[in-house]
Amino acid sequence: MIEPGQLVMLVSPKGKRYFRVLQTEDVLNTNDGQLQMQNVVHQGYGAVVHTHLGRAYTVLKPTLYDLIKSVKRRTQIIYPKDIGYIIIKLGIGPGCRVIEAGCGSGALTTALAWFVGDAGRVYSFERRQEFASLCRENLEKIGLESRVQIADGDIEQGFGIEKADALFLDVRTPWEYLEHIPGALIPGAPVGFLLPTVNQVSSLLSAMQDGSFSSVEVLEILVRRYKPVPERLRPEDRMVAHTGYLIFARLGAPGQDDTEPGEFTFHQEKEIC
Amino acid sequence: MIEPGQLVMLVSPKGKRYFRVLQTEDVLNTNDGQLQMQNVVHQGYGAVVHTHLGRAYTVLKPTLYDLIKSVKRRTQIIYPKDIGYIIIKLGIGPGCRVIEAGCGSGALTTALAWFVGDAGRVYSFERRQEFASLCRENLEKIGLESRVQIADGDIEQGFGIEKADALFLDVRTPWEYLEHIPGALIPGAPVGFLLPTVNQVSSLLSAMQDGSFSSVEVLEILVRRYKPVPERLRPEDRMVAHTGYLIFARLGAPGQDDTEPGEFTFHQEKEIC
Amino acid sequence: MIEPGQLVMLVSPKGKRYFRVLQTEDVLNTNDGQLQMQNVVHQGYGAVVHTHLGRAYTVLKPTLYDLIKSVKRRTQIIYPKDIGYIIIKLGIGPGCRVIEAGCGSGALTTALAWFVGDAGRVYSFERRQEFASLCRENLEKIGLESRVQIADGDIEQGFGIEKADALFLDVRTPWEYLEHIPGALIPGAPVGFLLPTVNQVSSLLSAMQDGSFSSVEVLEILVRRYKPVPERLRPEDRMVAHTGYLIFARLGAPGQDDTEPGEFTFHQEKEIC
Amino acid sequence: MIEPGQLVMLVSPKGKRYFRVLQTEDVLNTNDGQLQMQNVVHQGYGAVVHTHLGRAYTVLKPTLYDLIKSVKRRTQIIYPKDIGYIIIKLGIGPGCRVIEAGCGSGALTTALAWFVGDAGRVYSFERRQEFASLCRENLEKIGLESRVQIADGDIEQGFGIEKADALFLDVRTPWEYLEHIPGALIPGAPVGFLLPTVNQVSSLLSAMQDGSFSSVEVLEILVRRYKPVPERLRPEDRMVAHTGYLIFARLGAPGQDDTEPGEFTFHQEKEIC
Repeated sequence: MIEPGQLVMLVSPKGKRYFRVLQTEDVLNTNDGQLQMQNVVHQGYGAVVHTHLGRAYTVLKPTLYDLIKSVKRRTQIIYPKDIGYIIIKLGIGPGCRVIEAGCGSGALTTALAWFVGDAGRVYSFERRQEFASLCRENLEKIGLESRVQIADGDIEQGFGIEKADALFLDVRTPWEYLEHIPGALIPGAPVGFLLPTVNQVSSLLSAMQDGSFSSVEVLEILVRRYKPVPERLRPEDRMVAHTGYLIFARLGAPGQDDTEPGEFTFHQEKEIC
Repeated sequence: MIEPGQLVMLVSPKGKRYFRVLQTEDVLNTNDGQLQMQNVVHQGYGAVVHTHLGRAYTVLKPTLYDLIKSVKRRTQIIYPKDIGYIIIKLGIGPGCRVIEAGCGSGALTTALAWFVGDAGRVYSFERRQEFASLCRENLEKIGLESRVQIADGDIEQGFGIEKADALFLDVRTPWEYLEHIPGALIPGAPVGFLLPTVNQVSSLLSAMQDGSFSSVEVLEILVRRYKPVPERLRPEDRMVAHTGYLIFARLGAPGQDDTEPGEFTFHQEKEIC
Repeated sequence: MIEPGQLVMLVSPKGKRYFRVLQTEDVLNTNDGQLQMQNVVHQGYGAVVHTHLGRAYTVLKPTLYDLIKSVKRRTQIIYPKDIGYIIIKLGIGPGCRVIEAGCGSGALTTALAWFVGDAGRVYSFERRQEFASLCRENLEKIGLESRVQIADGDIEQGFGIEKADALFLDVRTPWEYLEHIPGALIPGAPVGFLLPTVNQVSSLLSAMQDGSFSSVEVLEILVRRYKPVPERLRPEDRMVAHTGYLIFARLGAPGQDDTEPGEFTFHQEKEIC
Repeated sequence: MIEPGQLVMLVSPKGKRYFRVLQTEDVLNTNDGQLQMQNVVHQGYGAVVHTHLGRAYTVLKPTLYDLIKSVKRRTQIIYPKDIGYIIIKLGIGPGCRVIEAGCGSGALTTALAWFVGDAGRVYSFERRQEFASLCRENLEKIGLESRVQIADGDIEQGFGIEKADALFLDVRTPWEYLEHIPGALIPGAPVGFLLPTVNQVSSLLSAMQDGSFSSVEVLEILVRRYKPVPERLRPEDRMVAHTGYLIFARLGAPGQDDTEPGEFTFHQEKEIC
């Protein structure tokens, strides 16, 4: 028995995945025939339900990884390896208000919406209408659209938001928008960026030296997979070698009201991995 | 102005970090003298408040990364690079019920408690009393203890929990506890493990071949940091080369009620990174 | 003008590479027609020579990398990233006498033959006749066959060689042949192994604990390539993640004649990278 | 029995390493007393010889790795992981004539001298007198100085050499010297560079777009070491994350005499690792 309103994943005999917010009266049209959602409700997770053509589908509770993997994409997406780290560095959690631009196909948007919960809010900006629509469609499919406000417009004039908790920019020239960040976030808020080339990283770092940011970090994350064979364990032959560089910082120069001028800094401590 | 009940981070002139759930009447004793929390409440994030000895402290809203970094530790902790990926693979989010063992100093526990929100629940098992106490202390300091139930006992007799959404084991011989997993989770639930040596990974993979698990993956995550100097951008000289191998799987063999026996599997698809 | 007897590489308009030990009277049959080697002799490196059908070929002096890349292969070959390190760890240079087994398609054999020079000698063992022939053919094509003695037989009965300077084993179960190594090498000689799985590495390390080896090291080498675009410099999207683990050691336990028993060891020093 | 004239390595009880070109009448002064080289000659590799104070030294034939590790250094040296790949890409072998600048402490110089043999020649340029002297001293200690010609001068006016087989630059601004390369090498010769920052790599790549170079590659090499414990095999906790970027190219634009103008290129093929 699964409560209606829950998000379920239905896996076809061939491995195709369907996502659905459960409604008892609902019917899912698959390549293998129709699935009655009331059967899913009654039989619960792990069950095998059958289409009217008798094909067996497995009912699962999807993980965020499942959702990201199934994002319908027309752009390069941000991958779980990067998303997981971004979430932790930006302090995203239940109740957060976070800004992102651009949303692209919506992989990071999905993750942000997942983590902020019903009490939080994601403000997404996307210049290209087609991607904004795709992102919206991806969110609707999994029932997370109500947590996200997608603005089809540009961010050249700023974000039109105040006191958000965090911000992430996945745009080509983030240095052009830095000036709008302080007005949109709480002081000291964490900000992040994703950039594919070292030249862009260098340009961004230069622009960030204006005194508005501290604790600047640059890093990249690599995932190396192994063939899971116990008696012949070894890494896979090839791996993804690059998606992008992650840049993180904290909004705000050191406090101005310091009684010992010049002494205070966010100490650039040894970071953990 | 910060609402009482919020978690704040207070950074000393020397970079020492204090965490506090804000109470207006509260006083924080620091190495630099006393800080009145009502000043923090009134002045808000980014403000510089002064101790009675006149030392300047900066008020910040902590990120999860800040919390993990400040976990008081007497064990090796799980690091953000691994935690971020674990969270996504296990589908942790607001409302989740998740099991972990052992909790050690509580870095992963902190993250799990952070993400499940007030509606979720973390069931932590730790055999050594001293670590259970340390973990509890670390959680209390940041006000997340109410989301976590720490059992000081062992898991040899099972977890005593039903229908949890996910499970993570960070113990030396996880293969000894596999039999207790199906009874504790919903069918198809994601499970994860962290192991430092290849020999342990091999032993675990062997034990997982009993048919109770599918979609088994083994991977490791590497973070490479750069010196953030725009005109001389280059990786840091040294990096953390190993924390542990991550193993993920889905509980449950393929469905039994399949009309086409032997055909159904969770297709071992090409995973994303 | 190139001296006859030199090895040249001729590159076709489509990038196909031909290797030839220059003989003035020789004719090279290419897909684009015949090339007179006397033209190559006269025109020299960097020249463009034409086939009788008028197609332009460029004359180059090949590097070892060129030779390895062009090895005709029917097996997995050892790659330059690993070969370069092997050569340095094994102390291969002009005049060396080195043993290897098995030779496979002959990539490492080619490198060993290249570096030992005319005064050195490579003793190659290959159980499978077809690979021994292929290796021989690859060596003949580049004129290095006289430096290599390929034995088609197995090494189960030993190597039949004495006082060689170094040894490298690229076989599936190297631990079965360890007993034959001391008789084949000078005392203290460097030995190396390549193994694809961690299970094999573990088995080899166990077998090496019998006291015959010291200074044991295990490592792997990764090459990460970048797209060489100055204004958009970034790593390639994918990379080779694994070829094999390299194991190195020095033959021989600490000296037996030590006046301070137990004190002497080859100090397991901090190795450089 | 070791033939006089051979290079030997003598390892002290504490692991200190002494290198010596064997001369029967020679005496080595160590921290543990005097060692008669005639004892070394007579007892051979692997033997334990004693100082006049009775301390036991082990006699070994050094590998190139041993030599590089023992280079007395006052600069950052080039490491074996990079040297091995450089040697293969530049086609260094017995008889080669190769140019390098600057020589620094002489780690790469040592390797080049090792591989070119008695028939080859290394032309080293070093602007700073102190490093040139140090490099010379390091080479003399191991008997390779006769293969190397160290010029204390700068390379601003060119190299003063013709038709060398290969060239390697380890200088801060290699793009300032590119114009002198074609005159110093045979057409089509391989060239290499080592640079620590991405900004330098980008500058070099820009300068190389003038048409004098083809087949340009950028890469980096990582060595990951494992703790060699068979039953607890795992990577070391930390590793060297960066030494420098390697850039390789081939001197010379595509042939000018091409009958099909514009068609010919050194095809930028898929490189091996």
